[in-house]
Order: sequence, then structure tokens, then C-alpha cells
Amino acid sequence: MTDYRTLRVALLGAGAVGSQVAGLLLRHGDELADRAGARLELAGIAVRSLDAPRDVDLPRELFTTDAESLIVGSDIVIELMGGIEPAREYILHALNSGADVVTANKALLDTHGPEIFEAADQVGASVYYEAAAAGAIPIIRPLRDSLAGDRVRRIMGIVNGTTNYILDRMDTEGADFADVLAQAQALGYAEADPTADIEGYDAAQKAAILASLAFHTAVPLEAVHREGITGVDAAMIDAATHAGYVVKLLAVCERIEDAAADGPREAISVRVYPALVPRSHPLASVHGANNAVFVEAEAAGSLMFYGAGAGGVQTASAVLGDVVSAARHHIAGGVGVGESTRANLPIVPIGHVTTRYQITLEVDDRTGVLATVANTLSEGRVSIATVEQTVIDAPETTAGGEAPASEIPMARLVIGTHKALEQDLSDTVDKLAASGVVERVVSVLRVEGD
Amino acid sequence: MTDYRTLRVALLGAGAVGSQVAGLLLRHGDELADRAGARLELAGIAVRSLDAPRDVDLPRELFTTDAESLIVGSDIVIELMGGIEPAREYILHALNSGADVVTANKALLDTHGPEIFEAADQVGASVYYEAAAAGAIPIIRPLRDSLAGDRVRRIMGIVNGTTNYILDRMDTEGADFADVLAQAQALGYAEADPTADIEGYDAAQKAAILASLAFHTAVPLEAVHREGITGVDAAMIDAATHAGYVVKLLAVCERIEDAAADGPREAISVRVYPALVPRSHPLASVHGANNAVFVEAEAAGSLMFYGAGAGGVQTASAVLGDVVSAARHHIAGGVGVGESTRANLPIVPIGHVTTRYQITLEVDDRTGVLATVANTLSEGRVSIATVEQTVIDAPETTAGGEAPASEIPMARLVIGTHKALEQDLSDTVDKLAASGVVERVVSVLRVEGD
Repeated sequence: MTDYRTLRVALLGAGAVGSQVAGLLLRHGDELADRAGARLELAGIAVRSLDAPRDVDLPRELFTTDAESLIVGSDIVIELMGGIEPAREYILHALNSGADVVTANKALLDTHGPEIFEAADQVGASVYYEAAAAGAIPIIRPLRDSLAGDRVRRIMGIVNGTTNYILDRMDTEGADFADVLAQAQALGYAEADPTADIEGYDAAQKAAILASLAFHTAVPLEAVHREGITGVDAAMIDAATHAGYVVKLLAVCERIEDAAADGPREAISVRVYPALVPRSHPLASVHGANNAVFVEAEAAGSLMFYGAGAGGVQTASAVLGDVVSAARHHIAGGVGVGESTRANLPIVPIGHVTTRYQITLEVDDRTGVLATVANTLSEGRVSIATVEQTVIDAPETTAGGEAPASEIPMARLVIGTHKALEQDLSDTVDKLAASGVVERVVSVLRVEGD
Repeated sequence: MTDYRTLRVALLGAGAVGSQVAGLLLRHGDELADRAGARLELAGIAVRSLDAPRDVDLPRELFTTDAESLIVGSDIVIELMGGIEPAREYILHALNSGADVVTANKALLDTHGPEIFEAADQVGASVYYEAAAAGAIPIIRPLRDSLAGDRVRRIMGIVNGTTNYILDRMDTEGADFADVLAQAQALGYAEADPTADIEGYDAAQKAAILASLAFHTAVPLEAVHREGITGVDAAMIDAATHAGYVVKLLAVCERIEDAAADGPREAISVRVYPALVPRSHPLASVHGANNAVFVEAEAAGSLMFYGAGAGGVQTASAVLGDVVSAARHHIAGGVGVGESTRANLPIVPIGHVTTRYQITLEVDDRTGVLATVANTLSEGRVSIATVEQTVIDAPETTAGGEAPASEIPMARLVIGTHKALEQDLSDTVDKLAASGVVERVVSVLRVEGD
């Protein structure tokens, strides 16, 4: 047994991830020591309540409610409490005490990242956050180190397991959103309050972190355009399937050429929304609660990183990878992950983004309607790539026995566009809705990855 | 513009990868300086012939035939010549001159890795080799850093683009091996002499590197069991499809419990062969010349890394990532990738490996044959999971008008086994072949990933 120096590790939080991290630190001590070049001594675990039930059986004497004292004298502090306060306060305290910090707290990084990274810089400490970017999927080191000699053009990520599980079941079973959500909640795949997942907040937090890393730009959460999946219904999935697509909630981080007042400028767009992805795209085969991050780089071409996006023990693996890195740097010198904002590119609002769209309309089925729609699109600088018109069966008399409201025959128009500016597209759809020939705008979905 | 220290970079070789590396170093100088924290000055490019044509237009004054002089005084030496000598000699010379080394030379690492890593250790220099493991796919840092707190159980890699291209086209088009190979050669996907690819040598070299990294064990190339894809025919692909599988050339690196004389011991197996992969497995969707590395770790669960396995500019991205890492370490201290052999696990021969198999036999279609086959398997400790017997149509008279050789009706037997020891399986198949009831052993394929 090599005679290693001992590093003192403080753990804040013993929830689903924290208890697994503690268990692995205790169980794999010798192996971790060999890898880190230092013995990692779990000095204690700060929790709110000493008596709360834990996922992993841990020695009772490790627990304390006094986080402040635990932090003092620690070499590495692992923050897995979540939330903003007191997590922020403890992390700053740890950095100022000379400790390196490992955290999985994406909400905190999105809101107080600059403050935390600056505090770390001031004292020469490092902040590691692999588990905050895409759960267990190793994405920080590939983006920061492996692609350091390359230029990332675009990231498309499936970074929320709950929504991918829901969309995947809707896709494979033709089920409705509400039914699948209820089942997902019963199975523990979705929270009792699913807002953070289904409204895209969780994905937006991760998108901000991925974009910061890829484009060396501080990306605050407010700069991320966000739409959730509550509007996705069975008919939409069905239409997507018919057209060779699958609906995925995507986090898209993209380097774009933005038409600013004084000429084109390099900028980035960060956005989260349900999008149509071609069935042949690698992201289309990401099933269940799995996550994947698809990266397009100038030289490397297309890369994809796939794995579990959440889960206590899976996320614990990412946290421990960071702990070992922090220990190595403690022993051998060098710097940790840190933050880079040297490019500091402008972040554009969604209106400046260019993508392809699929627009589904219900229109009156009479002469001249298609011409009107086509003209409106053309005037709005939206170019049509494909169009499919189908007659909608005349509605039967309703359940109450009344005659249908309208006697005019109806048609469904599915229009695939070439690349168009979001602002143009959105103005044009407004005009179509008010044109008199369009009865209903059924859906407008972006097409990504083709 | 920040005032960076300048690091002198020497490039050895200006082939498909080398010329792209040079081009990117010259073109993205400012951006690379920001990322590396040092200006990377391309001091020269050592080549055999000054007048050979290059993929990238490069300043003529950079070229030299005097590699030795170029190396002296360099901070980072990039070796992209390939082959053993003089690459080995130059790398040792570079390390002994105090330079860090970046290489994509898998053949050299497999044969002289220990000597090179020891030389680096002696002088405190580092050797980086991301591009040697899986082309442009970032896999070294995930394995070495991100998973440093975890234990890798198994790696299954599609690490050779040529063979994946061939097998994928055979799968999607029902084409024959020879036809697809000829087309692949015409398109430049396969070399004029395709041996290194189709016989699995290239995949075996990468498997050795991946296994070394994942299991902290020196894996010489001789320890890798290797079978190529020349025996894969259209009928085999057809049968695989029928059974829900796809045939892929896999590099499998696995931690196993080996039954040694003095009781079970932890060991590893490293092997390359065409295997059946379930169509629902993420590796099954890796099409064309793409590569992917599927990693199963104890805590992180299943991860997959996907991308281009080869290509000049793609591989150059991986090389430049290493160059930036080397530069950062030069400036900020710390150690590079290096080698770890601390676990030094025994590597078992193929006979000790346990997998599932699919055995296809042509048997006489008469009473008692299935019983004989089942008994032979059972006596050989091979347990049957699935069996499918189909009658083979009686052969028509041959082209020459002769009567068929045999009048006995024949059946085809496709047997899926439970997990069995390779040695048992192979002995049993020999017995079946000699049993008198089996006319022909059509194929024996391992099943991986289910």
C-alpha cells in the first residue's frame, strides 16, 4: 500500500446523490487513493437533520448539522445540497478557506456563477461542476479539453430525462401527454410538481452551462429562450412520425452570424424547445430517460455523448471524477476547470435565430387558399420547401346530436420551410392566422439536425 | 491582445492529419493562444520529402528534412509520422530534450508504450495520445478523468470506420462482402491493401489502448484476441436481421472474474471480433464509417461516445486538443495523461471468456437429430436459450444438370445459448461437427450487449 498524503473531504448534503458519493468514497478508498495520488478522507457530512432517512447506510458519527465548522480545514468541499442559499454562502466560505469545490448545483452556477468563479480565481482555488452540465455524461472535459483546439459550431442536447421519457412514450405508444405524465409520476420518473422538467427550466439551466463552456461566454439563465413540452399532443407526434421526424425537447447552443445594425457580427443563441429531429439523426435513437449531447465542431465534425442524465449513483460517478481531479491538482499542481469568458460573445434573442420550420394549418378547402397562404409566406421572406395538403373528413354530427358548426370543407396544410428568420416566421404566422383563410394554426415546430 | 509566453511546437509528419494540424495551428493562432494561455509557434514541420504534395497549403519555409534539429529546443513535439522507426527514436529524443509529446501513433504505443511512458516519467514530461484511441472521439479524458471515481466494467467499441462502413452497407443493402469492399476501395473508405482494417489489426491496436486506460493495466497487442470480418457473408447478416441483431466488428474490453487454479481472481479480457448486437442497442445505430465507444461503469451506468473515427481534419481536432492541454500544463504545472499500470490485472486468453452465442448448423432433417444436438450441448455445459429449426428446400438440380449430392432432407438449426465459457463452446462445436448428424457448422457468433 503506497503511503499517500491524506486530503480532507467535506460533503454538504446527503440526498440521492450525496449519500451515494459518501458510500463510494468509503467503499472504494484504496482504489480512489491510487487514482488521486492522495487518500480521500471523508471528514464529515453536513445535513439539515441528523435523523432523516438515507439511500445508503452511512456511519452515524460522520453526520453533523454544523457545515461551517466542517468546511474549515477541508481540502475539498463537495456541495450537493442544491438551492441557492446556504449553498452559495458555504461555497464562498470553502473557497476563502483554501478548499477546492465540487458542485452539481446548476441553479447556483446559473445565478451566481461569475461571483463563485471570481472568488475561486482570487484565492487560486478551483470549482468543478461536471455533474451540473448533463448528469452522469462526461461533457465538461470533452468540451473544455478535448475540443480545446477546435471550434464548436452547435450543441444539441437532450438534457432532461423526464421530458425525454414522456416524449419517447408518446412516440412509441401514441399516448397522450397527460396520461404519460401521470404514469411517469407514479413510476418516480417525474416529480409531483413537474414544472421544472416539463416547462424546460431544468434543460435551460443545463443549456446555459453548456453554452458557457462551448463558447467561452457567460450565459445567464435569462438569456436562454425556453419553451416546454406541455403543448405537444398525440396529433403533433403523429404528424411528426408521418413526416419522418421525432419530437425531442432540445437544448440548442449555436454560434451564429447575427445581422447587427453595423454589419454582421459573431453571436450565440441558446434556446430550449420541443423540435422535430429527423429519425435518422443519432439523437432520435435516445430513448427513455436517457440523455445525449450532440456536438458539431469545425474540425472534429459530429460527436455525441450519451448516458444517464440523472440518478443518484450515476450522478455520483461524475461528482467523484471531479473529486479525483481536484485531488490530483492539489497534489501535482495545475489548474482545474474554472470558467472562461474570454470570447464574451453577444447572446441574441430568439427572433434573430434562423432554422427550418414545420407549420401545420387548418384551412378552408376552396380555390385560391393555397395561393393566399403561399403569397403570405413569400411576402414574409419564408420560403416553402415542402407542402402537403390533405382533406379533413367532414365532421360527423357531434355527440349531442347537433350539426357541425361549419359546413365549409376543411383541409390540413403541412408546410416545411427552408431556413427562415424566427422573427419573420413568427410575424408571418400571425398574418396567416388573421388572413381569413386559415381556420386554425395547429402547430409551428422548429426542425433541428438536418 | 494578451501578451502570452511563446511555446515552440515541432511537427513531425505532414500527411492527412499532420497537414491539417499545421493548417489549424497557423489559422487559429490567436484563439489557440487564448485557450492554451501561451502562443503556439509552429517552429517547423519535419518531412521525408520537401516536395511531396500536401492536403493543406502550407508555407514552404516551415518544411525541413532535419527532424533531429527541429526537435531540439521545442516545448511540444507532435509526432504524426506513423510507423515504429524513426518515430520511436524521435519521441525519445523529444522527451529527453524536455519536450512534451503528442502522438496519434497507436502501433508505436502498443509496441513501445512502456518504454516511452517510462522515458517521460524519468524527465517529468508527458505523452498525450487522444487521437490514437478512437480517432476524433474524445475518450481518453472521459476514461481517465471523468470516470476516475468509478469502475469500468466493460467497453464495447466500434473503432474501425472501414469495417463499420462495409458491415453497414451489407446490412442495409444485403450486399456481399467482396462487392462492398471493392466499392469502399473505389470511394477511398478502404485502403488498396485492406488487411489492417478487415482483419481487425487496427481495431486490436485501439482495443489495447482503451483497455490499458480503463483497467490501469499494460495491455500488449499480443494479448488482444483478434478476428476479422472476412468470414461475414450476406447469409449471416440475413440470419442476424431475422433474429433481431446487427453484425458489428466490436472491440470488447471487459473486467471478468476468472476461475484460476487457486480460486477466482479479477482479470480482464480484450478481444476484437464480429459480434451480434441487438438492434435496440445504441451501438446498432452507428452507421457508415462512424465510430462509437460504449462504456459500462459501475456507478455511471451506460455511456456512449460517438463520432468520426478517422479523417485528417477530424483527427487533427483531437491532436490539437492534446497540444492545448500540453501547453496549459507547461504554463500552469500539473501532469499530463501519462500511463497507469497500477492495477496490472492478468489478461486472460479467449477460452476463459463467457458470452452468449448464436450457432447456426445444417443438420439432417430426421428423427432424433435435435435430441443429439441438445445432448451434446448439454454435456458440453452449453445451455440452450432459444432454438429455431427450419427446413432447407431440397436443392434443385445444379447448373450442370447433375443430381444433387445428397437426397437426405436438410434442416437449418439456429441455436441461441445462455452465457457459456468460450472454451466449452468451442470444444462442443467441434464435437457437433464430428457427430455425424451435423452436415455443416454455418457460423458461430458471439452475442454482445444484451
